[in-house]
Amino acid sequence: MARHLLDQPHHDGSEQYVPQGTPQLGDVVPVRFRVPASATERSVWVRTVRDAEPRMEPARLESADEHERWYVADVPVHNPVTSYRAFLDEPGGYRWLDGRGVHTRDVPDTHDFRLTVHDPAPGWMHDAVVYQVFPDRFARSSGHEGPPAAELPGWAQAADWADEPIGSGPGVATQLYGGDLPGIEQRLDHLERLGVDALYLTPVFPGRSNHRYDASTFAHVDPLLGGDAALASLSRAVHARGMRLLGDFTTNHTGAGHEWFARAQADRASEEAEYYYWQDEAPGYVGWLGHDSLPKLNYNAPTLAARMVAGPDSIIGRWLREPVSLDGWRIDVANMTGRHAADDLTHEVARAIRATMRELNPEAVLVSEHFHDAGLDLRAGGWHTNMNYSAFTRPVWTWLVDPDNTLGFLGLPSSIPRRDGTEMVATMRDFDAAVPWSITTHQWNMLGSHDTPRLRTVVGDPAQVEVAAGLLFTYPGTPVMFAGDEGGLTGTNGEHARVPMPWPTIDAGGGPGWDTATFEVYRSLIALRRSSRALREGGMRWAVVEPDAVAYLRETADERVLVLVARAPWEGVVLPRHLLRPGADAENLYGGADLKVLPDGLVLPGDGPGVQVWRLA
Amino acid sequence: MARHLLDQPHHDGSEQYVPQGTPQLGDVVPVRFRVPASATERSVWVRTVRDAEPRMEPARLESADEHERWYVADVPVHNPVTSYRAFLDEPGGYRWLDGRGVHTRDVPDTHDFRLTVHDPAPGWMHDAVVYQVFPDRFARSSGHEGPPAAELPGWAQAADWADEPIGSGPGVATQLYGGDLPGIEQRLDHLERLGVDALYLTPVFPGRSNHRYDASTFAHVDPLLGGDAALASLSRAVHARGMRLLGDFTTNHTGAGHEWFARAQADRASEEAEYYYWQDEAPGYVGWLGHDSLPKLNYNAPTLAARMVAGPDSIIGRWLREPVSLDGWRIDVANMTGRHAADDLTHEVARAIRATMRELNPEAVLVSEHFHDAGLDLRAGGWHTNMNYSAFTRPVWTWLVDPDNTLGFLGLPSSIPRRDGTEMVATMRDFDAAVPWSITTHQWNMLGSHDTPRLRTVVGDPAQVEVAAGLLFTYPGTPVMFAGDEGGLTGTNGEHARVPMPWPTIDAGGGPGWDTATFEVYRSLIALRRSSRALREGGMRWAVVEPDAVAYLRETADERVLVLVARAPWEGVVLPRHLLRPGADAENLYGGADLKVLPDGLVLPGDGPGVQVWRLA
Repeated sequence: MARHLLDQPHHDGSEQYVPQGTPQLGDVVPVRFRVPASATERSVWVRTVRDAEPRMEPARLESADEHERWYVADVPVHNPVTSYRAFLDEPGGYRWLDGRGVHTRDVPDTHDFRLTVHDPAPGWMHDAVVYQVFPDRFARSSGHEGPPAAELPGWAQAADWADEPIGSGPGVATQLYGGDLPGIEQRLDHLERLGVDALYLTPVFPGRSNHRYDASTFAHVDPLLGGDAALASLSRAVHARGMRLLGDFTTNHTGAGHEWFARAQADRASEEAEYYYWQDEAPGYVGWLGHDSLPKLNYNAPTLAARMVAGPDSIIGRWLREPVSLDGWRIDVANMTGRHAADDLTHEVARAIRATMRELNPEAVLVSEHFHDAGLDLRAGGWHTNMNYSAFTRPVWTWLVDPDNTLGFLGLPSSIPRRDGTEMVATMRDFDAAVPWSITTHQWNMLGSHDTPRLRTVVGDPAQVEVAAGLLFTYPGTPVMFAGDEGGLTGTNGEHARVPMPWPTIDAGGGPGWDTATFEVYRSLIALRRSSRALREGGMRWAVVEPDAVAYLRETADERVLVLVARAPWEGVVLPRHLLRPGADAENLYGGADLKVLPDGLVLPGDGPGVQVWRLA
Repeated sequence: MARHLLDQPHHDGSEQYVPQGTPQLGDVVPVRFRVPASATERSVWVRTVRDAEPRMEPARLESADEHERWYVADVPVHNPVTSYRAFLDEPGGYRWLDGRGVHTRDVPDTHDFRLTVHDPAPGWMHDAVVYQVFPDRFARSSGHEGPPAAELPGWAQAADWADEPIGSGPGVATQLYGGDLPGIEQRLDHLERLGVDALYLTPVFPGRSNHRYDASTFAHVDPLLGGDAALASLSRAVHARGMRLLGDFTTNHTGAGHEWFARAQADRASEEAEYYYWQDEAPGYVGWLGHDSLPKLNYNAPTLAARMVAGPDSIIGRWLREPVSLDGWRIDVANMTGRHAADDLTHEVARAIRATMRELNPEAVLVSEHFHDAGLDLRAGGWHTNMNYSAFTRPVWTWLVDPDNTLGFLGLPSSIPRRDGTEMVATMRDFDAAVPWSITTHQWNMLGSHDTPRLRTVVGDPAQVEVAAGLLFTYPGTPVMFAGDEGGLTGTNGEHARVPMPWPTIDAGGGPGWDTATFEVYRSLIALRRSSRALREGGMRWAVVEPDAVAYLRETADERVLVLVARAPWEGVVLPRHLLRPGADAENLYGGADLKVLPDGLVLPGDGPGVQVWRLA
């Protein structure tokens, strides 16, 4: 039998430990720590950091029974972000408890818990399941066989809907399938059937590519997609179903075909010329990652922020307003936005966008794209949350990946390595603990996106897709899925994975290229998440971390859910009996296995692969 | 036998791995990685971070023999601080190498290696051994029996030189022994005998306390210490011996008796009134950590920076100039300076001081006091280096502390816990790896200060003092010692440890209260450090990390020194034979033990406690 981890002290930012709501500077916030009865603490303290100086305050014992003791301590919110951790004074030396767990030595503040005065993402994000659509590949509107060749822009090559996307080389960015916004609107039933309730569109501005991350204007929607009216119509339809609509904006760069860049190149004394970085070497300006097609924006320009991000007439502002009324923005290359050599204006740009949102639509969400170590950016009060490749996608992939894969690993010169559960969880905790819980619980968790191989291709078979999806829909954060993952679409890299939705097969009830069993897995797991507040808002206690299985508790004040996810058969484990009230039953919510209740514990079965979820009443 | 760690890849910022000197923005710096022959890498890459986006570049195999391979890779210095780490592509999955060591999973950028364009501390800091003096307690000038009662300020109580310092309660800050600057000048022979070459004085401005951290003016030296002329004279004498003189400045606050604060309170419309934070609650202003005696300075005031830190006429500037010509400043409460609630001007203040130094004396050093997680502050281009409690004092104490101690642990509500060598080293590496090597190698390592218990009291016996001192004088960084540690002075907390130097006993060649054997240990270890460039400037490879012993290699291009430090008898270990050239001898530089050279390895003896140092030719 494996060992469980519930004999460790615990804290997170969920409602059992921290009062919900955003504190103000000067508030004093009581925080609670859970200490198992087996611990030997003489006292518990909280270490807070105030103007960069720690201070120790004793915690008070609030309640105790034969299983655990609860302590409460006051954390003064003196700075915009206040870090804290627990100190357990014990015979033989103290222990620290921070966001990574328990330490028997001194550690830096990096993984401290944190309270922040910055507003979290809007409340609807607690419940949201986000569905990402790449407009060229989702659906052509009815009767529309793709753009007539005569309408095709010069850069484009028309593709048949059934063509395999080109994964690299010539045509990769110019193969145009002709999906459009009315096509999406006509297929909203599919989203509703699946259970998702937020639609995130990659860019809809015109460009010189099928991905449209190289905008030629931000002033109107690409006519190939149906233009401004089609986006307004889609927005009305989405909102009429109680769903949300999110846009995608390149604050980092424009396309080389952008109207501002044309003016800048034509007249180096123009206002727009200040918007870019110029250099002597070819091509004469700084392109994003050296791409000539994507000139980098320079936020030192006095008027750029007002054009792009600040105020109701900025691009950000304009599309939050009627008639399109976006519910938020995903910011492309957010990590590099405003950063170039000695310039570092990222936080200013992010805060300007947030201020614009606060003014126009306080319910709008601001999501950054940062594939890497986003902790410092996320704590700065700009981005609400981030596309969570680091703490979710990457570690989950390494746990579930087909060991024989030859896929590239998101920029690394290696196939995706197979790691065990302890390594996956250590990485998740490392990155999770860099941000306040109010951000963790809204992180955009993904199993793939338009920038990655498809999940189905990464893990190799539907059983492992289910395991991955089990994690996605039960882990703290916002589940975000790429359209088509629910049908088992495949693809070996980001471009190759931009597969058109196979509507004929879907409409026929499945078949080759559309896995209805996987659709049912997604639909069921989304419904599971909707059925449990603990899965959406609860805390997170790791119960088991083994090479082939992990289990955790998601807990609110009134609900306890136990999630077990195994990639393979494993030893099983016995959890403490008191997790279940005497006489109560463990209700299976997903997977169908019984939780055997013995006098001295709850027996977690060692089957695998699979996902089991129980509500512990 | 224990296990050694030399089968791990290695990199640090020393001359074998990174060309010395400060890069400029736009430079490309070749960095080298050492990979043991036992590794299975297919290729080595460097991951650098550019505008917050990683990029992977292949490293080139530069040389190889039967023991190790060296790779070199180009790191473009695109940002003021450029982080990087190595990637080893190996069968079964890649490994990362960062400042904490090797990882078989993805990790945040926190412990990446770093290149910085910010100038390091001046070159003389490589060789410096710093001697800290608390002026009231070092020496009364000859014929001076302490200040005559008539001259005593109202707050002071005269103490006899032989009195035990009051450690807490009434009198702790007002007990005045009457040490003075001419007294220090008359005792410089002692410093020279010991071998130190930089004298750091805690504050010399007048205040209302024996510690003088509550200045009533920054315009002149306390007359009780001899006044301005005495400091100028001391400076001349120090410089005449080729030594350096460093001051101590409270950028964070003034005393409540300060002339600026008097003006501020008298006239709330005065310029000086803007220098402080005012509040409705008593006492009407913000005091440092709530101390009414120490009103906190507010760097939002438009003219405060010019008065305090910026330019030749600021306080910082004035004392760097003739006739006192300080060689640098230690900044009190540097971590909190400029920080209050939503204000965070610390980096601006630090950079202003650095700019003033660059203008007046580019050889001056700027040292912060930050007891905690100083990484982000140290990377900002202000402070050159920090008083290294976190990465040195605290972990070393926890390894060597008397397990029966009842001493407070620097603000923690606990006695000092006893940890083993693995925990000590993990903490050292955690904190060390947060800063560029150019800072690590100048960190102010200490075994105690005027703010801590005395080392001798912490570790409990002279043998453990020697072990601690062995670490101090062989570890990367600048050794900094508190006057009297070399004679085994004792004290249970910072105030109690401010023991007057027992000159009668010292002059008599030792006796109760002055341990001449410890003096010889310090003198020998300082001489050892002076005899080896590797100990001063070399890289740092951990060779052994065991509960009771640690060993490491300090290496330059032309020298390899092996340091073994044991707190108790241990198992011993066999190190790879090739560390020593065939036919060469291992010369013992300290401790006297032979290194047994067998055909298959170098046998490190398992004796302890003790310090052994060998040069491996």
